[in-house]
Amino acid sequence: MAVYTDISDSELEAFLADFDIGEPQAFKGIAEGIQNSNFLLETDRGRYFLTVYERGVLAQELPFFLDLLSWLAAHGFPSATPIADRAGRTLKSVRGKPAALVSFLPGLSVRRPGVAHCREAGEGLAWLHQASDGYPGRRANDLGQGAWAAMFERLRDAAEGLKPGLAAVIEADLAELAAAWPEDLPWGLIHADFFPDNVFFREGRFAGAIDFYFAADDILAYDLAICLNAWCFEPDGSFNVTAARAMVDGYQRRRPLSDAEKAALPVLARGAAMRFFLTRLSDWGSTPAGALVKPHDPLEYERKLAVHREAARSADGLALFEAFA
Amino acid sequence: MAVYTDISDSELEAFLADFDIGEPQAFKGIAEGIQNSNFLLETDRGRYFLTVYERGVLAQELPFFLDLLSWLAAHGFPSATPIADRAGRTLKSVRGKPAALVSFLPGLSVRRPGVAHCREAGEGLAWLHQASDGYPGRRANDLGQGAWAAMFERLRDAAEGLKPGLAAVIEADLAELAAAWPEDLPWGLIHADFFPDNVFFREGRFAGAIDFYFAADDILAYDLAICLNAWCFEPDGSFNVTAARAMVDGYQRRRPLSDAEKAALPVLARGAAMRFFLTRLSDWGSTPAGALVKPHDPLEYERKLAVHREAARSADGLALFEAFA
Repeated sequence: MAVYTDISDSELEAFLADFDIGEPQAFKGIAEGIQNSNFLLETDRGRYFLTVYERGVLAQELPFFLDLLSWLAAHGFPSATPIADRAGRTLKSVRGKPAALVSFLPGLSVRRPGVAHCREAGEGLAWLHQASDGYPGRRANDLGQGAWAAMFERLRDAAEGLKPGLAAVIEADLAELAAAWPEDLPWGLIHADFFPDNVFFREGRFAGAIDFYFAADDILAYDLAICLNAWCFEPDGSFNVTAARAMVDGYQRRRPLSDAEKAALPVLARGAAMRFFLTRLSDWGSTPAGALVKPHDPLEYERKLAVHREAARSADGLALFEAFA
Repeated sequence: MAVYTDISDSELEAFLADFDIGEPQAFKGIAEGIQNSNFLLETDRGRYFLTVYERGVLAQELPFFLDLLSWLAAHGFPSATPIADRAGRTLKSVRGKPAALVSFLPGLSVRRPGVAHCREAGEGLAWLHQASDGYPGRRANDLGQGAWAAMFERLRDAAEGLKPGLAAVIEADLAELAAAWPEDLPWGLIHADFFPDNVFFREGRFAGAIDFYFAADDILAYDLAICLNAWCFEPDGSFNVTAARAMVDGYQRRRPLSDAEKAALPVLARGAAMRFFLTRLSDWGSTPAGALVKPHDPLEYERKLAVHREAARSADGLALFEAFA
């Protein structure tokens, strides 16, 4: 929720001179995106989003993300499509900052997803996995399982400050996750942040996804596990198995999971909870009081992590996920 | 540049249930407006702005402003038109705060108005004065000439802190303005904040005005004087007589000024500079360090006030404005 860069009418005019998209008719800063400034641009030919990359997204990685969005558009997946200038470039600059113009993607995100939304989102995620198949760009997941132990080293005190005794628990979790992490599951391009606020619906149907700036190569089913955590927990902290089953069913409408992928969902979901716990804990500690953007509470994911830890230790092992087996 | 109120999809759905405007297809917080939260809403039937009134605008005054906008729309002036719900109400509420849905007004504001923009804006202001003629609502201008002395009493120390010796200068200005303030000029509904950021253009032509929350009854030519200050000073502090002449000419295309109105422009412009100097000085002092919204520099209007003071004392008196005589 931020607009960091102020763009004047003459700067906009200079930017648009490189494009063949008509005359500007409206231009408004949008309170969306934490790391970027976003503007809604309307011309006599259509509507667009102008994103100015402020920080957090490394400039040298932008071609990977923009080319991915172009690839997805070319393969029919609904997302914001980069608009090329007359010279064919999608990565531009405004006020010395990297910038890109993309098509406007209509749709509404939902705050409290219902079971039907989970089914649609699952299908949307599988669609993304199919549409991105073959994309030649490569990006290692710097927030993947291999990175967690090192991340935690810097966060040990923060974890202990959050809840005394937590550091040792997390350390044990990390060891268990490292030992159990699956090696042979299908990899591909994952969104890695397919949360409800990044997924659009129209009239109850999946209408597209935005915010691909965490996309990377990783285990495909891990992307689904991230979604199960993000979409299927109730506000009281309980895991909604009906919603989770709907999400997995929706996913399998387009991309059936192998038995190995299904069997791995519990550990993948536990790992996904670890990943968001760690980054939220990091953001929590590093955000100054009174900052514009309120960080997410790391305790939400600490609780989700605990749910998965308990499930892993329970007599029936896969209790939470047996519905998918 | 702010969005204070967070509206969920279910709250939006509940709000829209009272209206007959179709199904929502996109909903985005807009980084626009200092005292309100603004959202762009798109449905299958059209585009709208939803404004949630946060503070500063008194709830009991909202009917005056909304009815004014409805009146202007009915009389052909381009502005955001309030949309009535099925029961005919335009003043609604969201999350317990007053709120209104208005039509989307396309157009772009200009940062650095040229002479042609000044001419168009002048004509647009006269159009507004004509279109609002007959509006039955009444609102005293609580920031008008009668209020300045009392406002300054609270700002004496702030003025002295801004520039030693300034308090006595302002006090003398206020006495001169009170003595010279015209009594018999035509009154009517004035916008009172017809600044470049509140005026939209399309392809160089005036396309409408927004932000009527300072509108009140006052001297019509005073509204033009506010514009001369806001539009016709160069960044170096000099008064662009060519731009000012274009603005007055544009105004007179629709509403010719009487000789008395023209003769009063210098003192009205001096008063208009005083009004914005005082409110900016007040905002400057009362805004905490690190606040979201950066207040306007009161020195900008202190300099404009000085230009008008010098002109009033110069041998030829109306030097600055003789071009309009």
